[in-house]
Amino acid sequence: MSKYPLALQQLIASLKMLPGVGSKTAERFAFQLLTWQDKPLEHFATLIATLKTKIHPCPTCNCLMEKELCGFCDPAKRDTSLLCIISSPKDAYAIEETHLYKGLYHVLGGLLSPLDGRTVERLGLPHLLQRISTLQIREVIVALDSTLEGDATSLYLKEQLDKSSIPVSRLALGLPMGSPLEYVDGGTLARALTGRYVF
Amino acid sequence: MSKYPLALQQLIASLKMLPGVGSKTAERFAFQLLTWQDKPLEHFATLIATLKTKIHPCPTCNCLMEKELCGFCDPAKRDTSLLCIISSPKDAYAIEETHLYKGLYHVLGGLLSPLDGRTVERLGLPHLLQRISTLQIREVIVALDSTLEGDATSLYLKEQLDKSSIPVSRLALGLPMGSPLEYVDGGTLARALTGRYVF
Repeated sequence: MSKYPLALQQLIASLKMLPGVGSKTAERFAFQLLTWQDKPLEHFATLIATLKTKIHPCPTCNCLMEKELCGFCDPAKRDTSLLCIISSPKDAYAIEETHLYKGLYHVLGGLLSPLDGRTVERLGLPHLLQRISTLQIREVIVALDSTLEGDATSLYLKEQLDKSSIPVSRLALGLPMGSPLEYVDGGTLARALTGRYVF
Repeated sequence: MSKYPLALQQLIASLKMLPGVGSKTAERFAFQLLTWQDKPLEHFATLIATLKTKIHPCPTCNCLMEKELCGFCDPAKRDTSLLCIISSPKDAYAIEETHLYKGLYHVLGGLLSPLDGRTVERLGLPHLLQRISTLQIREVIVALDSTLEGDATSLYLKEQLDKSSIPVSRLALGLPMGSPLEYVDGGTLARALTGRYVF
């Protein structure tokens, strides 16, 4: 009798597939779900069941879309001469929040990580190059993570895109806003120093 | 366009109802759910949708049961002269893990917390007292949290149960296993000192 009921064990196993959720947290979630009222619980189940029918990736830019037209691709609202390369559909929303960018997006199939089997083929480069040549892009902004994998992917993209003559830029590296110097790591400080600007 | 698609917003709102899950974590969960394969996603949704039809509280002890008979109440397998009072069905599984207790359980309707509106009426005391008198209980073990609310509820139960002549015990308070003295808080240390035993 020390084992949870089967339905609960299965639910815990599913919850453990969420990022950063271990056994203890999954158990906590599952037992809390048991205390939910029927209505929100059903609503939650329906949302999950219908998630992928309601939201799907745009065939052009791979951002999320609900209706037949992708809001990120609409030429009436967006500057089609700018293309921002991101690694996840979520990043588009973060960039939109800045209200500083009105161009198009292109979601890569992930970042390069040969050890995890994510090689160059997975990036979907032919589709990207085709988009760049079809649209008359005047600048490509590479907006990938400032991690080892993000750096590797950015450099690879830079190499590939330099073959065309379109300017390729990358997000600035430096101090994050509101951070005291003493708490900034050496790598960040070094990049901030190298990239210092006259003001 | 800076807002997520509606279906995603709704899913994030539901996920935020899980314990300890804020906006950022809920967003992370939701975007990861979008990357799940169809099959595990459907399975997850079904588990949640059918959770409460598959698992329900035992009408006698309030522990979780899947079938028509509650495994915790089975007189053939359990010592019906011992009753352990717990605050959540989850606690029964933790106690079962010790393999030291084979008695019955009684899940309270929560812990006393007058500020949150959880008063004495919510404990379900009449049902508890009725069980104690029907079964011939020789000891009641109060196994509630060692928190302010757990302490208050334990004391209240002790007061009520002392009216019958059945011995009432409570889980020992002291050092948790494997903890160096220097990391133990003052309150715990004080209880450990008061409850010291000759060995």
